[in-house]
Order: sequence, then C-alpha cells, then structure tokens
Amino acid sequence: MKTFMMIVSYDGTNYYGWQRQTHLVSIQGTLEKALEKMLREEIRIDGAGRTDAGVHSLGQVATFTTQREVTEDQIKIAVNNLLPEDIVLKSVFQVAPSCHARYHAIGKRYGYKLYRSSFADPFKSRYATRIVHQLDEVAIRKAMEQFIGTHDFATFMATGSKIENTVRTITQFDLFIENDEWYFQITGNGFLYNMVRIIMGTLLDVGRGKISAQAIESIIKSKDRDRAKRTAPSCGLYLEKVYYPEEICRKQG
Amino acid sequence: MKTFMMIVSYDGTNYYGWQRQTHLVSIQGTLEKALEKMLREEIRIDGAGRTDAGVHSLGQVATFTTQREVTEDQIKIAVNNLLPEDIVLKSVFQVAPSCHARYHAIGKRYGYKLYRSSFADPFKSRYATRIVHQLDEVAIRKAMEQFIGTHDFATFMATGSKIENTVRTITQFDLFIENDEWYFQITGNGFLYNMVRIIMGTLLDVGRGKISAQAIESIIKSKDRDRAKRTAPSCGLYLEKVYYPEEICRKQG
Repeated sequence: MKTFMMIVSYDGTNYYGWQRQTHLVSIQGTLEKALEKMLREEIRIDGAGRTDAGVHSLGQVATFTTQREVTEDQIKIAVNNLLPEDIVLKSVFQVAPSCHARYHAIGKRYGYKLYRSSFADPFKSRYATRIVHQLDEVAIRKAMEQFIGTHDFATFMATGSKIENTVRTITQFDLFIENDEWYFQITGNGFLYNMVRIIMGTLLDVGRGKISAQAIESIIKSKDRDRAKRTAPSCGLYLEKVYYPEEICRKQG
Repeated sequence: MKTFMMIVSYDGTNYYGWQRQTHLVSIQGTLEKALEKMLREEIRIDGAGRTDAGVHSLGQVATFTTQREVTEDQIKIAVNNLLPEDIVLKSVFQVAPSCHARYHAIGKRYGYKLYRSSFADPFKSRYATRIVHQLDEVAIRKAMEQFIGTHDFATFMATGSKIENTVRTITQFDLFIENDEWYFQITGNGFLYNMVRIIMGTLLDVGRGKISAQAIESIIKSKDRDRAKRTAPSCGLYLEKVYYPEEICRKQG
C-alpha cells in the first residue's frame, strides 16, 4: 500500500467546484475517475480544501492510497494523459501513510486577480474579476493591513457555515499592481468558508469609498456578517499553495 | 441609413466559428442577435473573413447597415452589455455606406501561439498549442523566410476549397520567443482557407526535423497538398488585424 500526494492545478470555470457531486462534474470526481482508470481499483482522494465552482488552483493538494505497485512518475504521466486540458497534476510524490491532505494542512496561500476595464476582455474574463470603476489604492492597502494578525473572522464567513472556532491568523497580505491588473496574495493558517472572497468584496467597497479603511477593525470585531455584505466573484480566486509540516507529509525515499 | 464598422475580439473556444449556422452557436450569430436586440430590426453583418471553430480574434472586422439613428458609442455600450464575456466590441465607427468588411479588406495579420511543456497548462490550453518536443529555432526561421513574397500557395490550402486564384503575397513573418512561449506573426494581402494553420503545421514539422528548411521552396512550388499534411490546431490561431484602404473605409465625421 502506498500513499501519494498530488499538487493539482486547474481552471475551475467548467467545474462545479472541487467536491465530488453525484450528477455534476467536479474536480475531485474527474481526478478520481482518471486515477481509477489507471489503477483499476476504487480511489477516494482527500483534498486540502474545497474550492467553489469557478475558483482556480495553482497548487491544490490531494492525497490518496493505492494497493498498486506504481511509481510517482507512472501516476503523473498516465493520469495527465487521462485528464482534460483544464486539470493537470503538477507533481506527484509518495508520502507517509499517515499524511492526509486536509487534516495536516497548516496553512494556505490564495491569490485574487482583478482587472480594470470598461468592457470585458475575452482573454481575461475567465481568470480575473473585472472592475469598471477607479479603486483607491491607498485606502485598500490601509484596509489590508488590518486583516493581518490573529482575529476572529466570523464577519467574513459565509452564512450557514457550521464552524465553531472562527479565529484565524493571517500572516501575509500583499498587493501587486501591473498596468490594469491587480493581484492580491494572502497567506494564513486557515480560511473560513468564502473568507477570501468576502475579504475581497469588502476591499472593493473600500476601494470605491463605500467603506472607510479605518472601519475595517470595527467590522472585524463586530462578528456581524451584515457588515461585510459583498462576496467577490469566484473567477478571480486562485488557491496558490497549501502548507504541510515537514515531519509528517515529507516526500518519501 | 448608417453603416458601421466594428472591431471585434473574441475567445473562439466556445463557438462553432465565425459564420452564422442554423443550430450552432457562432460569433456572427451571437453578434447579430445582440445588435437586433438593441436596434429592433433585422441585422446582417459582413465579416472580413470566416474564422474556424476555436480560432480567436484580437481584431476581426465586420460591417453592417442600420435604419436607426444611433451613435457609435450607443452601439458599443449597449451591444457590449448584451454580449457574453468572451466576445467584445473593441471599437465601433461609422463608415461610408460603400465600405464592406470583406470586399474591401486588402490585408490581414494573424498570430499563432505555441507553448512548450510536457504537460498541459490549464491556463494556457485554450489559447495556445502545446508542443512537447524541442523545436529547432534556426531551421524554423530559415523556413519562414521562404514564405515571404508572392507565391502560388495552393499547397497550403485546405482540400475542397474552390478558389481559382491561389496566389498570395506574404509581406511579414516574424517569430517572438519569450520563455517557453513562441508567437508567430504573419501578414499578407490575403490567406487561403486554413493557410496559416497549414503553414504552421509545416513549420512544426521543420522544427522537429521531419521536413528540412531547404525543402520549403520546392514544397511551395509543388502546389501539392500532400507535401504539407499537417494543419496546426485552431486554438493557437489569432486573427490580429484586418487592413482597409483609407479612401473607402475611413471613419466618417
């Protein structure tokens, strides 16, 4: 029995999110089908987290266990040949049987891409959120600073989520601007459901002057979802990287 | 009565090509529907040329005539709001009633994008042709030179085309390389059906050593379609620009 970890990149546009669903095409379901076709046994993969419909990945992580005597390269080559062009295994490596993509994840990094344009750009619209109005960069950067640190992020969780501990730590939050493209990058020890998209929706309101940058602290403290109403579209969101403790999920051999 | 010229950009992946077809979604059909919805009259647009299914455009041109008293900006804003995100009117301007996008086109520029990678890149696969093998850049550049000038391009026309005069003039053919992306740019006074994709397929054979660069001249002269067998995939092809004579198709007013 061998346990493998896979780094998976995908364009999420044509999928109903990561999680397997009975009658809908999902990333997890598509990966499991490809692995089952190759390995000729039932395969259940565990993802580091669920990405919503339309969300992209540069570094989603999933683990699975197989009875077959296969190598990392055999899986990578065979499965990539079976996968559609919008999902790719960037790497595959054997890990200790105890390593689990979800349980052992200790942090994640997300990216969020915007572009400013009066009209849609057909080559960007799947991969970035279009903004028509000018955004106040100074106010946005000031607001971003206030998210860094350990906070109760209950304000920034999709309603209906049933998680008890809503305290998370954001260790990094940067903004890179190149021409009309804005790329946000945020790292934390974990994110609540829709947290990045609600933070981004709030920052867009700050950028348009609907919320003042100074108000962010009190919005976080309020733990009131009504204070952060906007959820930014999924097409701008990228799961960039998932972090694991070296001692458990290290590459074997 | 007013005649307008439109510059149209699109991601062709989800369309059955430019040309209107009864039961299939086409770029022309989608544009006509949006224009008809706005103008409330039957609209027939003339495109500079037909692009195949999957081919992209940065600068396709189309003309149409309307009975309505509308301005350029009104059309641009209203139609862009009605169009899906993968088609956009980059500009709209009034031209002389005699100007016709197809009859008056005096030249076209195309681009063709490749990327070299062992595995698919989910964010490039719609917009470029993936090449697994190394390509011989020197041989490709030598082959490209031989296409420049006025030649009978019958070798490079899709079988079944019924065009009598197959002589065309290529005025420019360049290759720009950035990391693992190769971008070819070709300009001519006109292109036969599938001509750019057959030229590209032939260059890929040159790049892999299947055809020698020196052989291109004789392949052109042979006028034998069997000497240029490969047609490169549509997803790498971009119609960049269409040229018109200033005196007929100039912007009015």
